[in-house]
Amino acid sequence: MVYFAVLRLGHRPERDQRVTTHVGLTARALGAAGMYLASADKYIVEGIQDVVDRWGGDFFIKDQIKWRTCINRWKESGGIVLHLTMYGIPLQDIEELIKKSDRILIVVGAEKVPGELFGLADYNVAVTNQPHSEVAGLAVVLDHLNPTALVREFPDAKLKVIPQEHGKRTDTG
Amino acid sequence: MVYFAVLRLGHRPERDQRVTTHVGLTARALGAAGMYLASADKYIVEGIQDVVDRWGGDFFIKDQIKWRTCINRWKESGGIVLHLTMYGIPLQDIEELIKKSDRILIVVGAEKVPGELFGLADYNVAVTNQPHSEVAGLAVVLDHLNPTALVREFPDAKLKVIPQEHGKRTDTG
Repeated sequence: MVYFAVLRLGHRPERDQRVTTHVGLTARALGAAGMYLASADKYIVEGIQDVVDRWGGDFFIKDQIKWRTCINRWKESGGIVLHLTMYGIPLQDIEELIKKSDRILIVVGAEKVPGELFGLADYNVAVTNQPHSEVAGLAVVLDHLNPTALVREFPDAKLKVIPQEHGKRTDTG
Repeated sequence: MVYFAVLRLGHRPERDQRVTTHVGLTARALGAAGMYLASADKYIVEGIQDVVDRWGGDFFIKDQIKWRTCINRWKESGGIVLHLTMYGIPLQDIEELIKKSDRILIVVGAEKVPGELFGLADYNVAVTNQPHSEVAGLAVVLDHLNPTALVREFPDAKLKVIPQEHGKRTDTG
């Protein structure tokens, strides 16, 4: 089992709340263990915690994280740091190499990130070299690197979807 | 070559502008031909057109689209309609079936979509049955269904990334 966590940088409360929420929920749904947020934002923390409480699993969300400290500790513990950026090496060219690691911190910036990050990251990885979305990039990276991304179970869920061909059905177990 | 387009429903100007922009840019980057927007929003149209002008390719963006008409015409022309929803059938269980089609309209809602849509869609497809992000879902669906999603060329680009291991480099061809 590979252990994934996400570090979200450059989040500005108000402006980035919806996109950062999408980043966090995508991280959870596709199998990351949790998200570190390099800003203070109670709204995000509570919103994601609320999803965890209802939909299960043990995804963690921590705000007010110092990003350099987070990256340095991750590396000291033997993990690798993958920075998601349109300027990086195409995912398909290095994913086999990255898969050799069993602790991966995926760093996801908002519009601007400190230039220093490109040097601190072990891998700067692009999901296409086109401008698009950090949410999309994170989803594709997790789907490629995590064999169980689409088939995870979420224990202790109060709410669960029963997949339907046409319609909506949930089970409140 | 499979032809993909995206139909974005339920977009509310102001509230959804950033997420809808992410949907459009993800559609373009991962190989859709264009996006229909079922609302009027000049800001989205101009923003995405600006990316196309600078980064190349011929992605189209059309707003003020009537969604029922769009879906019906797509079906009449022999295409299939895939509605992305957490209530649907897991992608991995039906992707081989969907790959038999060569014209796929991917319908991406905002938070609430009309119930009618579940009946109109040929396939209701889930990227995990967990709540997360329509941007993430769209990215994973395009990556699974489109063999060239990550390796597309964008002709006539004014701006192009030269991938780097550490750093940022663009070519203004």
